[in-house]
Amino acid sequence: MPKSAVRISRKNTEVPKNNKNNCIKIGMIGVGYWGVKLARNFHELPGANLKIVADLKAERLKEINQLFPDVGTTPKYENVLKQVDGVVIATPVHSHYRLAKAALEAGKHVMVEKPITSKVSQARELVEIAKRNELSLMVGHTFVYNPAVEVVRKIVQSGELGDIYYINATRANLGLLQPDINVMWDLAPHDISILRYILGKDPTYVNAHGGVYVNSRSKLHEVVYLTLYFDNALVNVRLSWLDPVKQRRVTIVGSKKMLVYDDIIDNKVVVYDKGVELPPYSDTLTEEEFRASYRHGEEVSYPIEWVEPLRTECNQFLECIRTGCPSPSGGEEGLRVVQILETAQRSLLNHGCELKVEY
Amino acid sequence: MPKSAVRISRKNTEVPKNNKNNCIKIGMIGVGYWGVKLARNFHELPGANLKIVADLKAERLKEINQLFPDVGTTPKYENVLKQVDGVVIATPVHSHYRLAKAALEAGKHVMVEKPITSKVSQARELVEIAKRNELSLMVGHTFVYNPAVEVVRKIVQSGELGDIYYINATRANLGLLQPDINVMWDLAPHDISILRYILGKDPTYVNAHGGVYVNSRSKLHEVVYLTLYFDNALVNVRLSWLDPVKQRRVTIVGSKKMLVYDDIIDNKVVVYDKGVELPPYSDTLTEEEFRASYRHGEEVSYPIEWVEPLRTECNQFLECIRTGCPSPSGGEEGLRVVQILETAQRSLLNHGCELKVEY
Amino acid sequence: MPKSAVRISRKNTEVPKNNKNNCIKIGMIGVGYWGVKLARNFHELPGANLKIVADLKAERLKEINQLFPDVGTTPKYENVLKQVDGVVIATPVHSHYRLAKAALEAGKHVMVEKPITSKVSQARELVEIAKRNELSLMVGHTFVYNPAVEVVRKIVQSGELGDIYYINATRANLGLLQPDINVMWDLAPHDISILRYILGKDPTYVNAHGGVYVNSRSKLHEVVYLTLYFDNALVNVRLSWLDPVKQRRVTIVGSKKMLVYDDIIDNKVVVYDKGVELPPYSDTLTEEEFRASYRHGEEVSYPIEWVEPLRTECNQFLECIRTGCPSPSGGEEGLRVVQILETAQRSLLNHGCELKVEY
Amino acid sequence: MPKSAVRISRKNTEVPKNNKNNCIKIGMIGVGYWGVKLARNFHELPGANLKIVADLKAERLKEINQLFPDVGTTPKYENVLKQVDGVVIATPVHSHYRLAKAALEAGKHVMVEKPITSKVSQARELVEIAKRNELSLMVGHTFVYNPAVEVVRKIVQSGELGDIYYINATRANLGLLQPDINVMWDLAPHDISILRYILGKDPTYVNAHGGVYVNSRSKLHEVVYLTLYFDNALVNVRLSWLDPVKQRRVTIVGSKKMLVYDDIIDNKVVVYDKGVELPPYSDTLTEEEFRASYRHGEEVSYPIEWVEPLRTECNQFLECIRTGCPSPSGGEEGLRVVQILETAQRSLLNHGCELKVEY
Repeated sequence: MPKSAVRISRKNTEVPKNNKNNCIKIGMIGVGYWGVKLARNFHELPGANLKIVADLKAERLKEINQLFPDVGTTPKYENVLKQVDGVVIATPVHSHYRLAKAALEAGKHVMVEKPITSKVSQARELVEIAKRNELSLMVGHTFVYNPAVEVVRKIVQSGELGDIYYINATRANLGLLQPDINVMWDLAPHDISILRYILGKDPTYVNAHGGVYVNSRSKLHEVVYLTLYFDNALVNVRLSWLDPVKQRRVTIVGSKKMLVYDDIIDNKVVVYDKGVELPPYSDTLTEEEFRASYRHGEEVSYPIEWVEPLRTECNQFLECIRTGCPSPSGGEEGLRVVQILETAQRSLLNHGCELKVEY
Repeated sequence: MPKSAVRISRKNTEVPKNNKNNCIKIGMIGVGYWGVKLARNFHELPGANLKIVADLKAERLKEINQLFPDVGTTPKYENVLKQVDGVVIATPVHSHYRLAKAALEAGKHVMVEKPITSKVSQARELVEIAKRNELSLMVGHTFVYNPAVEVVRKIVQSGELGDIYYINATRANLGLLQPDINVMWDLAPHDISILRYILGKDPTYVNAHGGVYVNSRSKLHEVVYLTLYFDNALVNVRLSWLDPVKQRRVTIVGSKKMLVYDDIIDNKVVVYDKGVELPPYSDTLTEEEFRASYRHGEEVSYPIEWVEPLRTECNQFLECIRTGCPSPSGGEEGLRVVQILETAQRSLLNHGCELKVEY
Repeated sequence: MPKSAVRISRKNTEVPKNNKNNCIKIGMIGVGYWGVKLARNFHELPGANLKIVADLKAERLKEINQLFPDVGTTPKYENVLKQVDGVVIATPVHSHYRLAKAALEAGKHVMVEKPITSKVSQARELVEIAKRNELSLMVGHTFVYNPAVEVVRKIVQSGELGDIYYINATRANLGLLQPDINVMWDLAPHDISILRYILGKDPTYVNAHGGVYVNSRSKLHEVVYLTLYFDNALVNVRLSWLDPVKQRRVTIVGSKKMLVYDDIIDNKVVVYDKGVELPPYSDTLTEEEFRASYRHGEEVSYPIEWVEPLRTECNQFLECIRTGCPSPSGGEEGLRVVQILETAQRSLLNHGCELKVEY
Repeated sequence: MPKSAVRISRKNTEVPKNNKNNCIKIGMIGVGYWGVKLARNFHELPGANLKIVADLKAERLKEINQLFPDVGTTPKYENVLKQVDGVVIATPVHSHYRLAKAALEAGKHVMVEKPITSKVSQARELVEIAKRNELSLMVGHTFVYNPAVEVVRKIVQSGELGDIYYINATRANLGLLQPDINVMWDLAPHDISILRYILGKDPTYVNAHGGVYVNSRSKLHEVVYLTLYFDNALVNVRLSWLDPVKQRRVTIVGSKKMLVYDDIIDNKVVVYDKGVELPPYSDTLTEEEFRASYRHGEEVSYPIEWVEPLRTECNQFLECIRTGCPSPSGGEEGLRVVQILETAQRSLLNHGCELKVEY
């Protein structure tokens, strides 16, 4: 459990019953591509009662009416705040702060899509309001609920790989260009939340390089190379909306073994018993003796028991509301991710200079 | 043909005859792992007469005696210089300058392994001596003789991909750690020579990040991320001696199409008719209209007529000696590669700051 | 008048009378070295009625009792907020935000010492609260009320110096080391506010280098070299708490003339009719013809009509309260100064890398 | 004596006699503004016989004929090399390497104006040729022969100032814009040679910022701020060809005392018994106790016994020729200065990024 998480005490713990009316009442704001997936999950989950959904677009609300005839719809988010225990926000990033703040100030628990906000100061304010009002605040870092990531985390934390030397990650595909954020703010929350979760710490320095090609009017980068230093471990993340082949792959190289986590193929997690060891130092070492000894041992695929990460994430939100427990993707985690992104964005705009992350 | 290449005039053009005695006499210095491959090629090539091979290690010379009983061997490189027309140098990098200089000053044509030298000033001096003495100077940038690279180059130069947006390259495997150079100086000459050849120009800015993990005593980086700006085109090259899976892959993303060149698989070059186009700008553009239109067209594999690149390279050296023609991997090209590497090394030692390449 | 200043409309404009009871009621929080000077001015000014002063230290309040027996004293700043129209805050920087916010939220006009806050987000919040509540918010950028600075500004704005090439500034003396801020946050608000006032624009890029010597425990820099780019004009400011000779000097070099403003001597502002002009370009230009022609013309001292800047500043605050007019050192100006300082601080902690100022 | 200096052994030590014919024969190449001063000194010095002077400009040779009728003149530098023991080169920087190399290869001792060359590789080559041929190679770092600098050096080396915290230097005036080098290459050799001489070590990191204003065609900076890190000691040097007031001033702040060396005034070296000391750390320290204690002690002017530095420098060259002894401004020192300048120039062209000096 992340150090930053704090068990929230609260006065009235709500316990859901079989009766839908006794379930936790959930409202949603924003039901675009991702919002519909969230709505489906909350609609299906036994402990939840998806009461009402808000969206500015009539056609989307119509779609919700057809999919879930028992769920109310409204063009005004204010209507959502009145009827529910928890609010799920899946709108464009620029509106996260305003909507989450309104929900928290109305005394509602909040789950907001990643990134939590587009500014550190806004994220910090949300965390403070949630803490002050003893409300749960969760961010949609879906991958920390991914069973493959959980397996990777256990392997890394067990020490099986030895010290972590470096990590190479790629998250690339063709599209989806976002109108208000660049590819880093869109995709890197996944990698940063995975890395923080796996390594159990925060990066100290970052830098970022990238390019704007298709939509030069917007100045929003479509390709970004993000470098993070987790103490000595160098992590490079390639993020691209412009790649002919979809890739979601993380290679972790340790002093003892190496691991590849490929989210697209079936054998998602493979550990390679490979490595290099130098002979102990000696002044009379010949070049041949210098030659590192390479170890090419066996490859082991780790089985993954698949559960839809989004389902786990939604359940976690209900659990947080019920018990006040912290989540692995709470407001503090969301704040950290934005602190890292904001520093990386600064590097991106300043010739990729290496910058200390300001926490 | 690269602009920098200059046709060298010379007084005595040697024409090879059928008789081995009339062939171009080749001597070799250094017959380690790579040197033996070069020796085999020169031994087999009709126009060449591999006369003599030098190496400091007796066991290697013994191996040569067994492989090629008709070729002389010597522990002293000076003996090579006396008997041949052209000298092929395949020794550790730190000795390239001294040996190539000695050979050029002895009036011999020279082919030297990559990188040409470990310092710009040394490379420049070799280029100047070769020019002054009207001798051919070639560098072992093998990949510019690779038929797959030639196909990629023709596709790029034809404009089929449109403007080049960015390029992502990976050259990774487990080992071979070098005792005197880091992974960038070992592997990046391949990528830089490929990129210069394909794009027909030089990078203006570079930066590099990396890590030393196994051999921390040597301070030689085993993993390097190299960024090069060819005008607006961003190129990122991942170089690693510590990777569980061998990879040699280049993705080129253009405004019209995208290309993947994977040197390890059979279908080495594939062009994807994929892309993104934004609608023309309008103030009243809705978010939906903003959405870029993605084009997912056909994938075309380009056939490669395979010829061993090293064979082509060795033939090119003979051709240069015979006719004085320039090669696509001449001394000037070698110098440019070292200028880029030296600037990148500086970035590597200075927090990865972006630096203008000094040509 | 700065572009950012906005005329504040308000419902009740207070007009001071001869009778002290009809004057603007002023309260002070913090009466250390600088606070006493402010107290003296407000005590003397005809339009002001210095009602009450708060400080945590009894001895300081005792001093106030002796100096101004008609002024109330209290250890609690909350008592000040109840009795006055305007609040003057001269406490350590870390408390500015909290106290200014409390005063603004209590409906009081506020004048706060420089820098306005130690964080951009805090400064922005104060500006927003003041705007929302239609209150005056002023920052103690004393030098923009200095008659010598006013003369310099008029000369620069008149175009007499031509285009501004570069500016060199020094603000150095022995001490006063601050316990909670470094020398840049202590002294640079003066230079930045002077430069913005004189040049009428904001710097785009900054960098900073410096050192911590005496108080290495605090990590607060005692010497800082701050570089600011106002478009093409390069400005270097030397800030030091550790210098044997007190210096406050600004040299402005323009394309037509040069100016020296030395705040310590009597002839504070001198304009030098000096310059360099190159002959028009010609291919056949010899080295002699190349030689720039140096112009060593007359030096002119500009007379300054001296008025204590602090007196002018205090009067400005009263004027702002009375009429709602903007001041040349309003909250927006304070915010800009902190935005510049925060970016410079980031550079200071990141090897002096050049950073774009984030406004 | 600098560590890098090496006593040169030689076969024929020449001892000068009273008779001019037995004196050391000196030739000069280049007699512009500075060359004439050198000529005058060598003409006057008892141990020297100024034989011949070369310059491309007839008018300058005419001037030499009038000033020193007994000295030969020639437009061809080759004529100088034939007749002399030592050659003094005072030409534009770009010709230093070629002329010094020719002189050293002709077996002549060489004294060359600063900077020794415009490239590190050229300086290194000159040092190597001189060493190989057992010849003296001296660079015109005049200030290390300045009696005031010698006094400063003794004070610093004695430890009287304590640990050196930081140094601020200014070298500014109006003109002289050089046609082939920027202000840093023109003026900083003075400051760098002074700093190396005073501190007895080399800077590890440098950065530089500056501007091109008058001669934007040439891209040669007219104003440069150079930062050097001598271990922890921060040194900032302001260099300007565009300043209304001539300044040559160095402030050295140490842990015990502070020193100002002003080359323009009579009291060139003043030591201030000033400083700041913090009380020992305590958790219960109040703000008042925190306040550093400032010490404002006496100021002491150090007497300087004035000897023209150029005279001492010329004498040193004769001494080096006679005895083979090293000088405090030998070729190695010249090389170091160019290594520092080349790295600083790189920083100047790369947004002032901090770079490790490559020695």
